[in-house]
Amino acid sequence: MVEIRDGKIEDIPQVFELVNELAVYEKAPHEVDNSIEEMIKDGFGDNPSFGLIVAEDTSINKIIGIVIHYIRYSTWKGRCLYLEDLIVTEKRRGEGHGLKLFNAYVEKGQQLGVNQMMWQVLDWNTPAIEFYKKLGANIETEWYNCKLEKDGIETFFNNKATK
Amino acid sequence: MVEIRDGKIEDIPQVFELVNELAVYEKAPHEVDNSIEEMIKDGFGDNPSFGLIVAEDTSINKIIGIVIHYIRYSTWKGRCLYLEDLIVTEKRRGEGHGLKLFNAYVEKGQQLGVNQMMWQVLDWNTPAIEFYKKLGANIETEWYNCKLEKDGIETFFNNKATK
Repeated sequence: MVEIRDGKIEDIPQVFELVNELAVYEKAPHEVDNSIEEMIKDGFGDNPSFGLIVAEDTSINKIIGIVIHYIRYSTWKGRCLYLEDLIVTEKRRGEGHGLKLFNAYVEKGQQLGVNQMMWQVLDWNTPAIEFYKKLGANIETEWYNCKLEKDGIETFFNNKATK
Repeated sequence: MVEIRDGKIEDIPQVFELVNELAVYEKAPHEVDNSIEEMIKDGFGDNPSFGLIVAEDTSINKIIGIVIHYIRYSTWKGRCLYLEDLIVTEKRRGEGHGLKLFNAYVEKGQQLGVNQMMWQVLDWNTPAIEFYKKLGANIETEWYNCKLEKDGIETFFNNKATK
């Protein structure tokens, strides 16, 4: 029996395993700078930086899927809910847990009264793009993501272009 | 004299004027569903959904530019600061206020101890893309934005694909 529910602080070690599983699958395990301790602090402090939904197989007390979400703000639309990650452990894919987790994410947005739900998809992931379109999503292809990473932040003010 | 500082609740009416100015410039004034009252509630309540930096021309008590930012969460990188909007009123462009506001945004990220700064740029906006590259930003071109808008949220669970 798989239960979909809000995540708890004691779920984080298993959640972090899933985060790392995805990173290995995407051939980028070295990109994970996060830790269990950080995730506990960031998700369960006074002003949490994210919310967590989990799919737990209660017969084995195992978290088999997660959604990480948080509020974003659009100056035009107001409060939006962003789906940062939806992960189902590789062995348990194809059983419908991904769709259930996605539904739980939309329910969360309704509860929070947001004006928009948002997420991203990789341009080569045609099955996912088609799936999202069927769910009623609009797909925008004209935006690029810009990032200033940790080393870039540190050296930013030494750069002539910032003067 | 133009002062860059954190925004205050009493700045919001002028901030909202700038938000609308941008929408008119982008030929989408009908897309603005937000209001002064909502922005005050969302930005200055117990758990604010955004942070605000303003550029004020103190000689005329006028807000001529703004940055709207908020914390996002990456499961791999932890807490990140996202630049939602950087707006300088049309008449005051070319005086260097945009760069000063961008610098203030990076300073804010340093103060908050985030691991990454993020924003988006339109794919046709070559001068902005070149400018961001000079500042040390990485530009990712392979992600699409997905959105479920207000009407889509309302009808979501009536859709066969969500079952």
